[in-house]
Amino acid sequence: MKFEDKLANYAKLLVRHGLNVQPGQIVNISSEALHRELAIMAVEEAYKCGASYVGLDLVDSRLTRLRVLHSSDENLNHVPAFLPEKYKELVEKSGANLAIRGNEFPDALVGLSPKKVNDLRISNHKAIKYFYDEGIGKSKVHWTVANGATPAWAKKIFPSLSPQEACAALWDEIFKACRADKENCLELWKGHNDRLHARAHKLNTLKIESLHFSGPGTDLKVGLSKLAKFKGGGDLSPRGVEFEPNIPTEEVFTTPNYHQTTGTVSATRPFLINGILIENLRLTFENGRISNFEASAGEETFREYISSDEGACRLGEVALVGIDSPIYQSGLVFQDILYDENAACHIAVGSAYKFCLEGGDDLSKETLEEIGCNESTVHTDMMISSNEVDVTAYRYSGETVNLIKQGEWLF
Amino acid sequence: MKFEDKLANYAKLLVRHGLNVQPGQIVNISSEALHRELAIMAVEEAYKCGASYVGLDLVDSRLTRLRVLHSSDENLNHVPAFLPEKYKELVEKSGANLAIRGNEFPDALVGLSPKKVNDLRISNHKAIKYFYDEGIGKSKVHWTVANGATPAWAKKIFPSLSPQEACAALWDEIFKACRADKENCLELWKGHNDRLHARAHKLNTLKIESLHFSGPGTDLKVGLSKLAKFKGGGDLSPRGVEFEPNIPTEEVFTTPNYHQTTGTVSATRPFLINGILIENLRLTFENGRISNFEASAGEETFREYISSDEGACRLGEVALVGIDSPIYQSGLVFQDILYDENAACHIAVGSAYKFCLEGGDDLSKETLEEIGCNESTVHTDMMISSNEVDVTAYRYSGETVNLIKQGEWLF
Repeated sequence: MKFEDKLANYAKLLVRHGLNVQPGQIVNISSEALHRELAIMAVEEAYKCGASYVGLDLVDSRLTRLRVLHSSDENLNHVPAFLPEKYKELVEKSGANLAIRGNEFPDALVGLSPKKVNDLRISNHKAIKYFYDEGIGKSKVHWTVANGATPAWAKKIFPSLSPQEACAALWDEIFKACRADKENCLELWKGHNDRLHARAHKLNTLKIESLHFSGPGTDLKVGLSKLAKFKGGGDLSPRGVEFEPNIPTEEVFTTPNYHQTTGTVSATRPFLINGILIENLRLTFENGRISNFEASAGEETFREYISSDEGACRLGEVALVGIDSPIYQSGLVFQDILYDENAACHIAVGSAYKFCLEGGDDLSKETLEEIGCNESTVHTDMMISSNEVDVTAYRYSGETVNLIKQGEWLF
Repeated sequence: MKFEDKLANYAKLLVRHGLNVQPGQIVNISSEALHRELAIMAVEEAYKCGASYVGLDLVDSRLTRLRVLHSSDENLNHVPAFLPEKYKELVEKSGANLAIRGNEFPDALVGLSPKKVNDLRISNHKAIKYFYDEGIGKSKVHWTVANGATPAWAKKIFPSLSPQEACAALWDEIFKACRADKENCLELWKGHNDRLHARAHKLNTLKIESLHFSGPGTDLKVGLSKLAKFKGGGDLSPRGVEFEPNIPTEEVFTTPNYHQTTGTVSATRPFLINGILIENLRLTFENGRISNFEASAGEETFREYISSDEGACRLGEVALVGIDSPIYQSGLVFQDILYDENAACHIAVGSAYKFCLEGGDDLSKETLEEIGCNESTVHTDMMISSNEVDVTAYRYSGETVNLIKQGEWLF
């Protein structure tokens, strides 16, 4: 397949399998400006699926840089009136939302005040909290996140290539990881989803009380409430239509009990927070909170981030990924969360998914607090496994099951 | 000056002279996606002027094409909820709005149903009527329209050049027409504005009862009410700050009495309506309405447009431009209204400007109707002069004054 054909295939994948656009649905596409051609293909595909309206926001992260550089604290709090309105409509009309990421200017936020960058993030998050709670949290909106390659991002992965060569190489990796280089891509995704659903189902039958991660610099116990259920692959909207939140996706994940998270953990890959790379992070959890941390880069940004609110230093997600993942197999570190989180087991500080709890939408605030379902404006994944890490499950029944040995699924 | 310096100079012109952004103002920039670098420069310039928030919408006309192609009549009427909200905020906060046009895909709407394209235009216009009435009509919003060059648009002007060469040549014309190729560009615009203000003032002292246009295929009388006043150059917002609605601008213009528009007129340049070129248009006005018309191209689009509403076939603007205009002097036909309207006298069907009437904002609906101040969702300029057209003024005092002879100002 030629590049243009793969790109068209990819657009079709994002819209037909990812969003699974239904006749009459409104669709919003938010795309890095550089990925405009891909976004236009996605717009056309959405109309072909019967979308009643497709909007396209082309974003450029230099805008955020200029805003933070030139704004007073008060001005940073301003939220344009249209923003909550726009995302409210998506929820109320059960629309679809595609985010095409892959930053053209990955260093746009480097050198800015971590506090100001984080304050801006918080105020935007609060403005569309309804969308996060109802649209994403309750799957009322069909949502998909995917990436396009950019020269500057690609140079970070392939530093010895020219920006253009690196970008082409990264597109190849993206197409491969997303199966967009295969004619029967949509079919392959159905099979892949079935496998992820089956794995989540098997884990759910175990009734796991806690997960134990052990490896170099890692000795972490993560408790799970009796209501916790693993999910993976496609999600189901209230209208009963399946959509794929992440493309690619290799994980099965659930909502931990943040009260019962203790121990020490070392990140096995760098990751970005507010546009800044956090490297060699080590964390200690005590009494369900991060009690201590260190990093060789990005410490100040991390500190600011986990101080965003009460829940920002507590656990919100735990996810299992084996080294059979094609993204791990590529041998690359992508410095991009969508790819790196699908290369290794990971935990996230911040908000937890109620949809990973049995009857989660109907649980009272008190119950949610009791079973350690975290709430926060933040949510960032941190990779914690490699071919040196084991994962063991302790079941409510008292039995012990080895899930992952030296990174490999046993299960 | 190098291209980059001219572009930076142009961005400065648009923001500092055009919008004249004031400290604390919110700013919206709507730009063709291709002009993103210019738009980002404008964003930075606006922040440097003290803007409290700058938003950027990057637009791509292929979206409109896809929407019209794939939408039912009902879906074409849908207006996203955020749109009126966004433009309401600009009015209520007395913001600023910069439109950077110059279409990357000038033929995006060719071959579509003229009715569907026009219906979409009407529904969008109605959705932000408040912005047009209060923001633009009462100058509460500082607004500026300007163009960037694109290869496809430039090829229409310089068909013998390659797209890249044509685009470079068109940028040169734009910089020249806007004085952005001069270091002291902001100063030059002050002088230019003074000249346009002085010309409008002189015309106002004449107290003109009607204008008579005569030339090949043209014999048109346009009546002016006693309240009509000519304007030109910078406009004044209610906060007493001057801004420049059009860059470039060479016209002085006023609001005609549509009841007293009679005769025949021939367009001297082609012009676009809903993305379709209207060529060799001839119009007849009887009893204040277009009673008859013909065109060698775009007739169906023109018919649809002037049927948009009651006022769409009545006169809403009359403007005078002499052949001293640098845009006329360039010898080029730009197939773009911002440039071509500043190369020749023109009339517009559709909505009239109340700000061109003495005390216009406070006039009753009855008075406005009596003095022929037109209302409509449409407004399109049509060029009607050349070096073969004369313009004569008949004064309320009974005297006759020749204003323009063979295209040249006498006044």
